[in-house]
Amino acid sequence: MASEQTVHMNGGQGDTSYARNSSLQNAEQNRMRPLIEEAIADLLSASASMPRSMVVADLGCSSGPNALALVSIAVDAIRGQCFRSRQPPLEVCVFLNDLPDNDFNMVMKSLVAFQQGHRSVVTGVIPGSFYGRLFTTGSLHLACSANSLHWLSEAPEELRRNKIPAYDIDEHVRRGRRRVVIGAYARQFRKDFKLFLELRAKELVAGGRLVVSLAGRRSEEPAAEFTHAWESVVLILSEMASKGVINKSKV
Amino acid sequence: MASEQTVHMNGGQGDTSYARNSSLQNAEQNRMRPLIEEAIADLLSASASMPRSMVVADLGCSSGPNALALVSIAVDAIRGQCFRSRQPPLEVCVFLNDLPDNDFNMVMKSLVAFQQGHRSVVTGVIPGSFYGRLFTTGSLHLACSANSLHWLSEAPEELRRNKIPAYDIDEHVRRGRRRVVIGAYARQFRKDFKLFLELRAKELVAGGRLVVSLAGRRSEEPAAEFTHAWESVVLILSEMASKGVINKSKV
Repeated sequence: MASEQTVHMNGGQGDTSYARNSSLQNAEQNRMRPLIEEAIADLLSASASMPRSMVVADLGCSSGPNALALVSIAVDAIRGQCFRSRQPPLEVCVFLNDLPDNDFNMVMKSLVAFQQGHRSVVTGVIPGSFYGRLFTTGSLHLACSANSLHWLSEAPEELRRNKIPAYDIDEHVRRGRRRVVIGAYARQFRKDFKLFLELRAKELVAGGRLVVSLAGRRSEEPAAEFTHAWESVVLILSEMASKGVINKSKV
Repeated sequence: MASEQTVHMNGGQGDTSYARNSSLQNAEQNRMRPLIEEAIADLLSASASMPRSMVVADLGCSSGPNALALVSIAVDAIRGQCFRSRQPPLEVCVFLNDLPDNDFNMVMKSLVAFQQGHRSVVTGVIPGSFYGRLFTTGSLHLACSANSLHWLSEAPEELRRNKIPAYDIDEHVRRGRRRVVIGAYARQFRKDFKLFLELRAKELVAGGRLVVSLAGRRSEEPAAEFTHAWESVVLILSEMASKGVINKSKV
């Protein structure tokens, strides 16, 4: 799929890198903390006997300091739970997943440093789309995903066939097509999300947990704050196109 | 450890890359084919019941076309064995391991392509030294390693303390120290290899298999073919140092 090969966060550590521009995403990860802690508590208390080891994964981890945030929360929660129930520390296997074009170079070094700071933890990377199988059947205890599931597997086929973009610069055309575009993207999301759930259902152990968060809106009307950001991007792109910096047909 | 951060094969696809200069290593991998096939046959016939899935790993995979060679042999062997015993295909989880500075960018793309060409296979990368824990207890069915175990965890401490290099340019000094140097490296290898075996013993499932190959020699006398290559390297380095291309103290 073209999107699997080309869409990824801006790598490295520079001014425009994802690593330096993702505090919003980190705030969302922190909001997920109690959900992850609850999932771990459920998982460990529900088992008749303590599992020998646990496998936790972040799906759509990206790169930079956020990449390890969710799995760190999970590892801390497992440690805390073992300590409170006076059990020896569980072995934890931590996996990070993203598309193969993600900048994994820094991720690899962070993973090894993380492992050195956490006894009984081993770490790895699973490259690939989360709209495909990533783990063997019944091998995953906890899967987390923050701000990633709005990335669809592809643009809706009905729009691609008719060459309808997600956002037409011409306001009149855009308004006229709004319902069609929103409907097509909503159906694509439903299809992709159903596939995501089916795949994870196979990969999770019996009683395994899935904690995901993603942005959304309640109505078909564009929400003010999103539209504001979106309009700014369109204005900048139109300005760049008018000055010949980028090709107008690509806007 | 410094060596974990700095020693790695030459990345990329260029003229001097490992990917373009590793046919010798590939020949060795092919020689391991019957051993891997035998290990898979043993593993699958020894189990009272067929396992639900298998985990295979290449430790010290490096990058380029060789990175997937050993695990490909293992996956083919598992497929063949299932076909012959009229069993449905087993799920296989394939892991590649090397130090975090290895060039994993191409490896990630090859892994995803490999997975797309092999149903029931999932793939991942485990970064880190194989002189540390890489997998949780009893989670690995087959570990392979070709031409990697001669990379020690560090230079022998007794030589570092006395600032004795592995190969002194001065022939007289070198000959005088030969026994000391060879003895120190042999002891370091023994220590590292013992650690490697202890770690893998924990990680392998009961009855799991380990297939490794590495270069060695029978006597303390330097073997002619190795010495020949070694002398050439020393001559080139000395020439570069005398011309000021590299610092003499680093030769």
